[in-house]
Amino acid sequence: MADDQELGITASKEHDTGEWYAEVVQKAELASYAPEGMSGFIITRPRGYGLWEQIQAALDRRFKQTGVQNTYFPLLIPESYLEREKEIVDGFDPEVAWVETAGTETLEERLAVRPTSESIIAPYLARWIRSHRDLPIRINQWGSVVRWEATETKPFFRTKEFLWQEGHTAHADADEAWAETLQRLEQYEAVYEDVLAIPVLRGAKPEHDKFPGAVRTTTVEALMPDGKSVQGATSHYLGTGFAEAFDIRYTDAQEDEQVAHTTSWGLSWRAVGAVIMTHSDDQGLVVPPAIAPEQVVIVPIYNDATKPAVIEAAESVRGRLADGGVRVHLDDRDERNPGFKFNEWELKGVPLRLELGPQEVEAGVVTAVHRPDGRREELAVDSIEADVAAALDVVHETLLSAATTRLEQNIRAADDRASILGTLGQHGGYVRTPWCGAVACETAIKEEIAASIVAVPLEADPIGPDDECGVCGAAADQTAYFARTY
Amino acid sequence: MADDQELGITASKEHDTGEWYAEVVQKAELASYAPEGMSGFIITRPRGYGLWEQIQAALDRRFKQTGVQNTYFPLLIPESYLEREKEIVDGFDPEVAWVETAGTETLEERLAVRPTSESIIAPYLARWIRSHRDLPIRINQWGSVVRWEATETKPFFRTKEFLWQEGHTAHADADEAWAETLQRLEQYEAVYEDVLAIPVLRGAKPEHDKFPGAVRTTTVEALMPDGKSVQGATSHYLGTGFAEAFDIRYTDAQEDEQVAHTTSWGLSWRAVGAVIMTHSDDQGLVVPPAIAPEQVVIVPIYNDATKPAVIEAAESVRGRLADGGVRVHLDDRDERNPGFKFNEWELKGVPLRLELGPQEVEAGVVTAVHRPDGRREELAVDSIEADVAAALDVVHETLLSAATTRLEQNIRAADDRASILGTLGQHGGYVRTPWCGAVACETAIKEEIAASIVAVPLEADPIGPDDECGVCGAAADQTAYFARTY
Repeated sequence: MADDQELGITASKEHDTGEWYAEVVQKAELASYAPEGMSGFIITRPRGYGLWEQIQAALDRRFKQTGVQNTYFPLLIPESYLEREKEIVDGFDPEVAWVETAGTETLEERLAVRPTSESIIAPYLARWIRSHRDLPIRINQWGSVVRWEATETKPFFRTKEFLWQEGHTAHADADEAWAETLQRLEQYEAVYEDVLAIPVLRGAKPEHDKFPGAVRTTTVEALMPDGKSVQGATSHYLGTGFAEAFDIRYTDAQEDEQVAHTTSWGLSWRAVGAVIMTHSDDQGLVVPPAIAPEQVVIVPIYNDATKPAVIEAAESVRGRLADGGVRVHLDDRDERNPGFKFNEWELKGVPLRLELGPQEVEAGVVTAVHRPDGRREELAVDSIEADVAAALDVVHETLLSAATTRLEQNIRAADDRASILGTLGQHGGYVRTPWCGAVACETAIKEEIAASIVAVPLEADPIGPDDECGVCGAAADQTAYFARTY
Repeated sequence: MADDQELGITASKEHDTGEWYAEVVQKAELASYAPEGMSGFIITRPRGYGLWEQIQAALDRRFKQTGVQNTYFPLLIPESYLEREKEIVDGFDPEVAWVETAGTETLEERLAVRPTSESIIAPYLARWIRSHRDLPIRINQWGSVVRWEATETKPFFRTKEFLWQEGHTAHADADEAWAETLQRLEQYEAVYEDVLAIPVLRGAKPEHDKFPGAVRTTTVEALMPDGKSVQGATSHYLGTGFAEAFDIRYTDAQEDEQVAHTTSWGLSWRAVGAVIMTHSDDQGLVVPPAIAPEQVVIVPIYNDATKPAVIEAAESVRGRLADGGVRVHLDDRDERNPGFKFNEWELKGVPLRLELGPQEVEAGVVTAVHRPDGRREELAVDSIEADVAAALDVVHETLLSAATTRLEQNIRAADDRASILGTLGQHGGYVRTPWCGAVACETAIKEEIAASIVAVPLEADPIGPDDECGVCGAAADQTAYFARTY
């Protein structure tokens, strides 16, 4: 559609990451900016929405296999519900879009376009739960939320409306609720690694940066190539705070009343942004095979004389791959030459290209070209299904391995202020340092270099008894990972 | 959850359809009413949302197989966009919810919570289409829309917010656009019949009742057991009206500029309402196997002595069915007796119940009970996968055949005013009559009995040269189907 792609990407990923990202999003036809009067919104085109659909499917399958059921709660939430959440959650004050008039009515109470749904979900959990036999209850909602933050738009990373899922569960006790919190975090990690080919740093948020209603907030952080960290998804153990406020109680086996323990967890289309940013290059989009709208594109190479045989062979390969469940497209446009097609599908991020000319037809082979590294190999037509599956696995591994190396090389230790600042300034990435736990020590770094503590260890903390805070020198009781963030 | 189901359904489907429907929706845990201040909204619980998810999957698969791609456009639409649509579409004046303040801002232009998205989709189609090579373009959006209609709420049938899909396509010429319109209508019909077990009356809307922006509106109408018709889905051929207004133009193969022809088509969660209403009975919910959250429930019957063997056999059957892709649940709760479980799963609409006691274990059989008609049969454990698949097919056929008989028996001919009114009054259903095409003739009937013309024939009209309008007696030029509607 249109001819944007003919221009190709002009900005450099390394030198002008912001402009490069904006170009990839638009020229690979992932999203368009919304029209005037709607700054902060985007139009998600089929190629962008297709990435989200695959992420959704991968996550939804895992959720359902582990007892989660989907629901749908209203888009609009009465102000009094949000006010009630504000009373519980110190610091909860989302900037929301308000509906005050509707149809011919002026509403008695204004309604917020949901910024998140726990304030309306919790009262229904309270209503549905009576006995320990009703627990655990695990519900999830896929939908869009609106938060009126006036920062600069970055498609999929920062938009006023975004797509996400929010899961809410209630359990009989703390152990089960904490296990739930970790199970969801592990599912997020698995989707990042196995589906998106992005390794993550798994951790907890420091006390001062957790979701204010949570006992503990856990996170998966993904390192972007420009050295900044993206919060990939979060999972919160909420303790009994929400349950007490919203009356989520149950009678146990002894007929005694108990307060439930709750969790919540969410992943947004920011994951799409992380994929684009992590894998793509100066030729355009690169995405892992698991979420690519087309996993394979076949480009036949022919002239008038050879066309019938080449197209017949290409169509046969296409049919066999499609029958095997591969998302495959045969680009048989006469009006474009192969070079143009190569460029276009590279720009659009198709993981594997199969080239097929008269020589290949004769020899019973196709030439496969891997999008991430240009690796070329000959595949036998006779075993095309297995060979393509193997090649797609290699593409995934290539992406994951590059990102893993980058992550490993960009976690650096520092134990004094100068080296924390120096390391962040020179390399970006994560800087690990002993920390005394004082917010002031984070602030001191943030003011110098706009980096914050994105995570503390979730399990065993490598802190030793003699460690001193890398910022202030006081006795340290935990390890902090500093990074600049999106 | 909670103990609502212990009460069972108290209202009669035949005598108090409205109250009966409300009970089924709540006691089968499909939906709850939203809280005070939010009248017109519902909370869609897992069992209700699960029905919608299956309908979505069935339709989405068909759409994708026929070239449709999903997108996501903003939830909020500037007022000027809706105003522009009003100029094009005579009579388009949706009652919408308005956002005028957001965060700390008072917006320069107020934004509508989308009542439908064509006013924001059309300008982007215009932007994306340049050449005939960009056509056809077929996009679809799954999402929720809000229309502030102040009528009484009926979950899934009439709610201020509802879930739906809206498809929008552009084509080079009228023939292709009309074929698209019919293809989508046929897909809706197929989903109603093959998935929902509801036969439909396929037709066009009369000229005065088409979507005002359409050249022709086509519809599938479903007959409810109380004799009223539900508009099951619509598909519109929009001609060049939208394309001219929104500048959806392309250059053809001769480099001449042409105006595109567009279509739009939609199905909402009203389909869920139609399923509930069509198949359910005084014992509770009945749904066809294709969309049932659980297709099969296994109820083991045991005492302390026989429990281990019975549970082992039941678990084995459960595992084999699940491996074969059946959605199956083993109800092994000790604290409930089999009779309670039978009632509960009947209320919740599980299509097939398998009973399994020590005698059955010994004999290597299970007793299968069909939800719609209570039919009982013995199935051999050895061939359980094939036997259950066959039994589920029979359940679908039982439902479809009952609904088909009802539809066929409730299309009646009438050729004068008294018999139109008499037939509608006595039987409900559809009354077919020759019609002169005057709106006044519809109005005359509507004023007497609140029935309207829900469809005219889409293809061959049975009208003859000597037919006279059943209402006014003037020369008739088409056939009208009158019915009362939801």
